[in-house]
Amino acid sequence: MKRFFASRPSYAPIALLTDFGSEDSYVGTMKGVIASLHPDVRTIDICHSVSRQNVREAAYLLWSSYPFFPQGTVFVVVVDPGVGTDRRILLLRIASRWFLAPDNGVLDFVVGDQVVESATSIALENSRYILSPLSNTFHGRDVFAPIGAFVSLGVPPEEFGKKSDVPLPQNKFVSAKRARFASILHIDRFGNIITDVRPTPKNLPKGLSISGKSIRRWVRTYEEAPSGSPCLIIGSSGLLEVCVKNDHAAKKLKARTGSPIRVLWA
Amino acid sequence: MKRFFASRPSYAPIALLTDFGSEDSYVGTMKGVIASLHPDVRTIDICHSVSRQNVREAAYLLWSSYPFFPQGTVFVVVVDPGVGTDRRILLLRIASRWFLAPDNGVLDFVVGDQVVESATSIALENSRYILSPLSNTFHGRDVFAPIGAFVSLGVPPEEFGKKSDVPLPQNKFVSAKRARFASILHIDRFGNIITDVRPTPKNLPKGLSISGKSIRRWVRTYEEAPSGSPCLIIGSSGLLEVCVKNDHAAKKLKARTGSPIRVLWA
Amino acid sequence: MKRFFASRPSYAPIALLTDFGSEDSYVGTMKGVIASLHPDVRTIDICHSVSRQNVREAAYLLWSSYPFFPQGTVFVVVVDPGVGTDRRILLLRIASRWFLAPDNGVLDFVVGDQVVESATSIALENSRYILSPLSNTFHGRDVFAPIGAFVSLGVPPEEFGKKSDVPLPQNKFVSAKRARFASILHIDRFGNIITDVRPTPKNLPKGLSISGKSIRRWVRTYEEAPSGSPCLIIGSSGLLEVCVKNDHAAKKLKARTGSPIRVLWA
Repeated sequence: MKRFFASRPSYAPIALLTDFGSEDSYVGTMKGVIASLHPDVRTIDICHSVSRQNVREAAYLLWSSYPFFPQGTVFVVVVDPGVGTDRRILLLRIASRWFLAPDNGVLDFVVGDQVVESATSIALENSRYILSPLSNTFHGRDVFAPIGAFVSLGVPPEEFGKKSDVPLPQNKFVSAKRARFASILHIDRFGNIITDVRPTPKNLPKGLSISGKSIRRWVRTYEEAPSGSPCLIIGSSGLLEVCVKNDHAAKKLKARTGSPIRVLWA
Repeated sequence: MKRFFASRPSYAPIALLTDFGSEDSYVGTMKGVIASLHPDVRTIDICHSVSRQNVREAAYLLWSSYPFFPQGTVFVVVVDPGVGTDRRILLLRIASRWFLAPDNGVLDFVVGDQVVESATSIALENSRYILSPLSNTFHGRDVFAPIGAFVSLGVPPEEFGKKSDVPLPQNKFVSAKRARFASILHIDRFGNIITDVRPTPKNLPKGLSISGKSIRRWVRTYEEAPSGSPCLIIGSSGLLEVCVKNDHAAKKLKARTGSPIRVLWA
Repeated sequence: MKRFFASRPSYAPIALLTDFGSEDSYVGTMKGVIASLHPDVRTIDICHSVSRQNVREAAYLLWSSYPFFPQGTVFVVVVDPGVGTDRRILLLRIASRWFLAPDNGVLDFVVGDQVVESATSIALENSRYILSPLSNTFHGRDVFAPIGAFVSLGVPPEEFGKKSDVPLPQNKFVSAKRARFASILHIDRFGNIITDVRPTPKNLPKGLSISGKSIRRWVRTYEEAPSGSPCLIIGSSGLLEVCVKNDHAAKKLKARTGSPIRVLWA
């Protein structure tokens, strides 16, 4: 595509990714804080249904969506089992975008793909940019939302804390030939099973084994799959997926987010 | 109401209706594409919880909501079992609004009510307006979002493909007197059963039969219904609904979206 | 925090709180009405998953989030079992913000905390500001959305109806020492049990009794709780909560929204 980017707006959006769900007012409250500090920025929800505290699933959802957001976007990721402890919070600049998240691996897939342009460790004692009193249980509201708003206002990263080393990704995709063990990153609403196997034309697996069942049939579209039979497909982010036409592949195969699977190379 | 429309904004919104749910980053990614191409437009979610691939339910949700959106709104509808096949994608202009959707009947209720001002069949080979590489599984991101953004930017329809014939609605409401068979379009969160029976003062049914049970009691508000007993009510879009006060009518009557029902005229 | 409010935008947002869920197009339709009448205002979703017609839960979600929204925000609350009857609809001005809601107690926690600056009872016969024909079942679309839009446009409250007495809060928090009976306001996505007990340093309960089980262990962060054991924690709004680390406290304790609990002061 010849990209037709409209003239740059005053402000790129703030994109939110959390495990807060939609049952509560947590996400709405974060947006209230953002609107209070930066009324002209808009927020976009990536997803708030990350399985509770599932850092790896969130890492996948972020990685698969961030390239489609404008440069300058501030990604605010709150999947944060360690809230209120002294875990680090990082602000990274990658691919001309900002990523604000706890240092727990949630940025690993993005970091693994791209050069990190800058890395800052947020100082929580910096009361100028965080809400006070600071709660121990809701840093999404008290830390992530206001700092995200200030980043989108153009406050430079050194204002929020100290230069940090770049996190070393532990979460990686399975792409090398002969890697035998892989896992399920995410089950989507249609029941498609999204794996962490990232095939290349030279490293194309023959199949997958899930819950003891071998799947070796490849399809190009969901529609061309034979009804009822699990098939392999390259998903929209380039990862290997398993689908069942007109059915829920994950239920059919008793597959769950996080489950280990095997890659069949022969 | 004397309508107090504020002065026309620069851009009408893009309204999204999909069966993508909220468990994934699919909708968020579409919004990222839209924000990249047209940073000043805003998006409004109509609903993303359409039953998977239920074209008729989506057609109802679109029809019941579109008149309440501003003129110029771009409706982007992605309920698309045929994604990646050569099914047509249509861009219609109706009632001074734009409708972008697969040609699978999802626009039928709107088309049945209104004059179609223009109809265009989207050319997928037109790489100027769609993302490249084009995936086979996520046209919401690669086709619908960018074309929706370009439509909202004012790119004229002939840029996206060829003039098309207007789709002939297959999905119709039941309104003629003596039509005996009808169906359930949608169950709402309150358990109200929304049917495709569209009564007029001259064609007012005596009742409905659902799961073998006759319902003949009419009410004007949910509140005035007797507790526990299914009642007929004209819903907010003019369709016949069944409600049970302080209870879930659909569960009580074992009714499901898509189920056939009978209309009682005597 | 030294608050860095950006210069006031033209319009504060409209914040929506309903029990409409996400399965329907009800919320989207309300946003369409708002966008038609006031294209430049933005809407923020507080929450739409309030338990059906649970006024008290909605009152809690509103109270815990409103202080984090900008001054001038218009809160539109539609948890409204009496829709279509002659129940009053109120527009209150509190803490430099607007609150539009049915007069059923949903504003009680906010009213209990703050001075009410003005109170207006909405006249439904005032067809200038509500949609026509007025349905009996969807005042969110026909009354609340348009009046919310007009309030955000700056139309003064006396335009919408008559000056009203201020509602006398029935819903109150439990904070006095020795109050023995309390209840569960809300279960959040993580399973945390949020109660209506609002401790102060001088009135700190020793524990809670839920479903016959005494909980007396206090923690400061979720992380420091011992695995598997219910603990007391002061939540992010200052209310007493019960959590279980890495588990769903409400399921473990068979606790539900609305259930009565006991406060242990010794």
